[in-house]
Amino acid sequence: MSRVKPKLKVGLIGTGFMGKAHAFGYISAPRVFNLPMDIELHTVADIDELAAYDAARAYGFVRATSDWRDVTDNPEIDIVSITAPNALHKEMSLAAIRAGKHVYCEKPLAPLADDAREMAGAAEDAGTRTQVGFNYLCNPMFALAREMIAAGELGEIRCYRGLHAEDYMADADGPFTFRHDPAGGGALADLGSHALATAEFLLGSITEVMGDCVTVIGERADGKGDRRSVDVDDVGRAFLRFANGASGSIEGNWIATGRKMQHDFDVHGSKGALSFSQERFNELHYYSIEDAHGRHGFRRIEASPAHPPYGLFCVAPGHQIGFNDLKAIEVAGFLAAINGDGPEPFNFRAGLRVQTLVEQIHRSARERCWLSTGG
Amino acid sequence: MSRVKPKLKVGLIGTGFMGKAHAFGYISAPRVFNLPMDIELHTVADIDELAAYDAARAYGFVRATSDWRDVTDNPEIDIVSITAPNALHKEMSLAAIRAGKHVYCEKPLAPLADDAREMAGAAEDAGTRTQVGFNYLCNPMFALAREMIAAGELGEIRCYRGLHAEDYMADADGPFTFRHDPAGGGALADLGSHALATAEFLLGSITEVMGDCVTVIGERADGKGDRRSVDVDDVGRAFLRFANGASGSIEGNWIATGRKMQHDFDVHGSKGALSFSQERFNELHYYSIEDAHGRHGFRRIEASPAHPPYGLFCVAPGHQIGFNDLKAIEVAGFLAAINGDGPEPFNFRAGLRVQTLVEQIHRSARERCWLSTGG
Amino acid sequence: MSRVKPKLKVGLIGTGFMGKAHAFGYISAPRVFNLPMDIELHTVADIDELAAYDAARAYGFVRATSDWRDVTDNPEIDIVSITAPNALHKEMSLAAIRAGKHVYCEKPLAPLADDAREMAGAAEDAGTRTQVGFNYLCNPMFALAREMIAAGELGEIRCYRGLHAEDYMADADGPFTFRHDPAGGGALADLGSHALATAEFLLGSITEVMGDCVTVIGERADGKGDRRSVDVDDVGRAFLRFANGASGSIEGNWIATGRKMQHDFDVHGSKGALSFSQERFNELHYYSIEDAHGRHGFRRIEASPAHPPYGLFCVAPGHQIGFNDLKAIEVAGFLAAINGDGPEPFNFRAGLRVQTLVEQIHRSARERCWLSTGG
Amino acid sequence: MSRVKPKLKVGLIGTGFMGKAHAFGYISAPRVFNLPMDIELHTVADIDELAAYDAARAYGFVRATSDWRDVTDNPEIDIVSITAPNALHKEMSLAAIRAGKHVYCEKPLAPLADDAREMAGAAEDAGTRTQVGFNYLCNPMFALAREMIAAGELGEIRCYRGLHAEDYMADADGPFTFRHDPAGGGALADLGSHALATAEFLLGSITEVMGDCVTVIGERADGKGDRRSVDVDDVGRAFLRFANGASGSIEGNWIATGRKMQHDFDVHGSKGALSFSQERFNELHYYSIEDAHGRHGFRRIEASPAHPPYGLFCVAPGHQIGFNDLKAIEVAGFLAAINGDGPEPFNFRAGLRVQTLVEQIHRSARERCWLSTGG
Repeated sequence: MSRVKPKLKVGLIGTGFMGKAHAFGYISAPRVFNLPMDIELHTVADIDELAAYDAARAYGFVRATSDWRDVTDNPEIDIVSITAPNALHKEMSLAAIRAGKHVYCEKPLAPLADDAREMAGAAEDAGTRTQVGFNYLCNPMFALAREMIAAGELGEIRCYRGLHAEDYMADADGPFTFRHDPAGGGALADLGSHALATAEFLLGSITEVMGDCVTVIGERADGKGDRRSVDVDDVGRAFLRFANGASGSIEGNWIATGRKMQHDFDVHGSKGALSFSQERFNELHYYSIEDAHGRHGFRRIEASPAHPPYGLFCVAPGHQIGFNDLKAIEVAGFLAAINGDGPEPFNFRAGLRVQTLVEQIHRSARERCWLSTGG
Repeated sequence: MSRVKPKLKVGLIGTGFMGKAHAFGYISAPRVFNLPMDIELHTVADIDELAAYDAARAYGFVRATSDWRDVTDNPEIDIVSITAPNALHKEMSLAAIRAGKHVYCEKPLAPLADDAREMAGAAEDAGTRTQVGFNYLCNPMFALAREMIAAGELGEIRCYRGLHAEDYMADADGPFTFRHDPAGGGALADLGSHALATAEFLLGSITEVMGDCVTVIGERADGKGDRRSVDVDDVGRAFLRFANGASGSIEGNWIATGRKMQHDFDVHGSKGALSFSQERFNELHYYSIEDAHGRHGFRRIEASPAHPPYGLFCVAPGHQIGFNDLKAIEVAGFLAAINGDGPEPFNFRAGLRVQTLVEQIHRSARERCWLSTGG
Repeated sequence: MSRVKPKLKVGLIGTGFMGKAHAFGYISAPRVFNLPMDIELHTVADIDELAAYDAARAYGFVRATSDWRDVTDNPEIDIVSITAPNALHKEMSLAAIRAGKHVYCEKPLAPLADDAREMAGAAEDAGTRTQVGFNYLCNPMFALAREMIAAGELGEIRCYRGLHAEDYMADADGPFTFRHDPAGGGALADLGSHALATAEFLLGSITEVMGDCVTVIGERADGKGDRRSVDVDDVGRAFLRFANGASGSIEGNWIATGRKMQHDFDVHGSKGALSFSQERFNELHYYSIEDAHGRHGFRRIEASPAHPPYGLFCVAPGHQIGFNDLKAIEVAGFLAAINGDGPEPFNFRAGLRVQTLVEQIHRSARERCWLSTGG
Repeated sequence: MSRVKPKLKVGLIGTGFMGKAHAFGYISAPRVFNLPMDIELHTVADIDELAAYDAARAYGFVRATSDWRDVTDNPEIDIVSITAPNALHKEMSLAAIRAGKHVYCEKPLAPLADDAREMAGAAEDAGTRTQVGFNYLCNPMFALAREMIAAGELGEIRCYRGLHAEDYMADADGPFTFRHDPAGGGALADLGSHALATAEFLLGSITEVMGDCVTVIGERADGKGDRRSVDVDDVGRAFLRFANGASGSIEGNWIATGRKMQHDFDVHGSKGALSFSQERFNELHYYSIEDAHGRHGFRRIEASPAHPPYGLFCVAPGHQIGFNDLKAIEVAGFLAAINGDGPEPFNFRAGLRVQTLVEQIHRSARERCWLSTGG
């Protein structure tokens, strides 16, 4: 049988949680979506050579290496996925971009907006496609929510409430990690950034912020058992103003005992409302003032083939997609953009935007005043 | 049969939603609770004389009047309930207090904290008992939540999120009402005040606030059909600091399309968490980190006789109390305090405290800076 | 002020859970509803004289007695409420009916259908009004459900699933009680009867049943500490056929560990569906196939003034009524029927009907075959 | 890098919903699980040659064919997946088994238990491994439920309620399909079979059944527009007796308007209870009587790495797996069994068992009497 599709070769840097998620995405996306290209898993890199080999075997990469430059510098490779620690995102991305590769980098794009800006500019100059991993936005129910808002089904949008709460830092005996790094760490950057991305995805540009960032667990033991002071926020909150006139708030919280994946939003408009929780992310709750008398109520819409691209995963409604499927949708969007079939779903410029919002909220919290975000 | 209980005579001013709720409370409380006194419904007053007569007939008051001074000035009356418009609370309360009566006033105690302070002082000087209607606090599940927090079942308390959202002002075509009065009106005063009262009920004193108050529907038609500018907030938000070291936020929102009674809170501690919604107010959701491996989860505790005073209403668990039962609990607490059986559950001093918080948040929002609350 | 309403005098037999609920109902109903009569709480009877006196004091009855005949035989009394043990319902009811009184008897009307038949006939012969306490039917959301079904909002009704599960008999160490009496006891009679009443309330007559009744805890200790064999069912199930062509099932279960008040139903029609749980009885979930493409879902309708008589309790939606309010609605319906303002909501004939269904299901389970119910 | 794993070659027959799900499973399983073999997608067959070619391209099969015997007869192929219409399962399976291949056949194994028996016997004689697609059982929360029951965490198991309701046949204008075939079709066979498999998975053998099968939509239009009588059930119910002494019920329903994937169960034991709904299949609700006083409640356990093999998909709790991941787990279990690493998770003998239960329930419904199931 004929095979006329071009083949793109992928290099992956990092083999942890997100490395695995990227690999799954590259494997699934071409099979779920009718993509215009084939994907070859070419090289996987991890500073731990054994981990690289294991990942190569598990996911089907042809080569493994302990040197990430074997990925960024290899002329055979078309796409580079970066899931290494945040502090390395910039150096790796720039190397890959300069080598003419498309780059898919995990969030945060960089610990500092200035670095993110340099990365976005470099990619735009080089003309390569980029992507940052804000995979919650890939949920078909988010597409539905955005479509409903844009179509005016909720009327004029008035208020917004966003939240991303988990509890993986709730244990005060947990160690100091790279996520506690004063340059770029903290709950707002790690989780609040998702809440901010979702807010702008749904309502458009945020113009002003007032931040409130709190460190709750003030020191942690580092790897050597020494106590180390923690300066980053465990809870980051912000009031928001949107360009469309709406106001709102978000919270990022990684000490929310009991919460594992509470990425929630509530939108209230003049004609309706939406309520969503990632804890049950195959559902969107919708209220319409136009329902008949005595028949009003929040409607639990279950994900179905009426909500693309759900139907590419399951032809029957209510069967539900999983977290890794969100990642496959994210990869598919990136690959389509590489092929010129549409805009980049969430490129480095968008990643920079989130980083800018995070930094302005941090600054606002420090200075205890409202700040403009340039949105 | 012998009747040795003293009898207290009640006068009620106002016959609307809250007037009815007070009347129901006085009728139910002595029958549900084994109170040390009998209650006689003596006089009901409403500026609309017919409404007063109807209420007298419906609820069993002996007399009806269109002049509220027939209540405050009648030496036979022991307790005065005030459910008239907010602007009249002060004059009526002071008249009743000066006549030596115990006063149960609907919230807000007064549109301005200075007035509330005068009222609280007058009652303390006169030695009469007072109560402000913050009935959500009377929920047995709130008592449970407070007890769990106080007993350390959640460990150290770290974060709080409170919300009171309804949609009765969501229709931009709705008329200008007394609730839109620039002196004391708005969503923060009307609904956010409940969220603030709950926050202090559970976690103790709030020490600092940063407010964000937004007017969304900028003008409304008054009774004569003229357009009238609205200055009060439709959404009021605040960041909070508590004396116990926790931080948090609240929101009061009366344009939250689709929400009818969303008085919610989330508390996260180092050992557990609580989550509550008034939409299902006979439930409290509790997470404990001490559950067995793989068996963790938010537990839906249903109101039962283990949660006093639920058992006085229903001897079986899960049968559920209603809104009017909350009001009966509130009345019972007030009557017990009158009898000297315990402190006033929520007296004028407490009402003043909430009013002070509201005003500081308003001021903070105007001045765009954090303010101390004297808490 | 004038008082032209007639006054009806009430006698109450029994002061336990249901005695209290009846008393609350008589106290609340005339105040919530604009009833055409006043109610006087005349005499309360309990075999325990002290309990009778306490109840008189608590609820406001004028007299107390240890002899129930002081109620049924007193010519001053108009209405008799019977909340004594089931085995006494017949004798008490017949005495009251023969004395010309209206009778409100707790369920089950009688342990045996033959007795219930005699009671229904006696009341009809005497021309007095009767009522049996199936209070779940008084929920405004049940009225809504029935109205929606009758109006064709669900299209042709096809399937039904009903459940009443609690766990008050789940403890095998719990004592043998009157509810374990072989004549008329068991989970089907106690709880399944509610599920059957609801099924006929919503869908109309049940024509055939196939029962499955299981005793799980085969013996219990009686008051003297002797082991006593239990013959009644702990779980009673039935398949159902309805006169309207639908089929369905119900279950009554009093050993459903963890369930406190799970009176649920699901109705599926050709155009829509309803789903209800008494665990959240101020909500009705409604699905319509006529919602827009991609906007389908079960809609959580919250009880509101659009659902009479909710608005008589609370003028605002979402505030919620409680179990005792259901009892007040029940009493109000009975009093209205006594005044000739409408049919008896659930009279002895209806109570007999439920008892007949229970007995046919018991017989069907014993004989392991389908039986007609005369419906 | 070295590659020492053996490679198994897969042939797939059928490219519809389930064909796609199998293909996804074969692609994902070796990447998620550390399987002892590699998988090559060798040949895909579909009677529609174009569909076969499209599937080959989409999923990565090397060859495509319109003749299923190219799969069953090809000596290179080790494993045959059968997702063709039910009526062909037997012929295809027997051909594959006789050629020495391992066979993974979609449910129902065969329309008639006698055929399923012949298939199971053939596989056992040939010594090949088999699997039937009851993928709901692969949910980590099902493993948790079974483990909790087996470990006695619920005490003695007393009652069971199972349900599988969807609405894909609710539209009376929908066409007559192969699922309406009198030999083996109907809601009980299609959906009730899942409820039966789950019941035995959790509680062990069912010994007796009493069935109730109802046809609601009595005729449908066939492809030519002719009206055709439908004899199979739209709703199938059964009472159950289990070998462990428990009793219960199940329902299969494909006209349950509004329900897309309601595969639910409730288990009540002497010490606890479990409640599950596939509508939110990453959750299991657990009640324990051993919780502290006033702290009892159903606990919402979210799927996490504590519930294998969830952690192979997501290292963080609460991220959720999807329907296709269940299928990957199913494939992984089959491949492990082929490698001799454990028993077949759900082999043809188990598929026969479900078919036998379905047939006995059908027969019981026709004869209107209880029947033994040989369990």
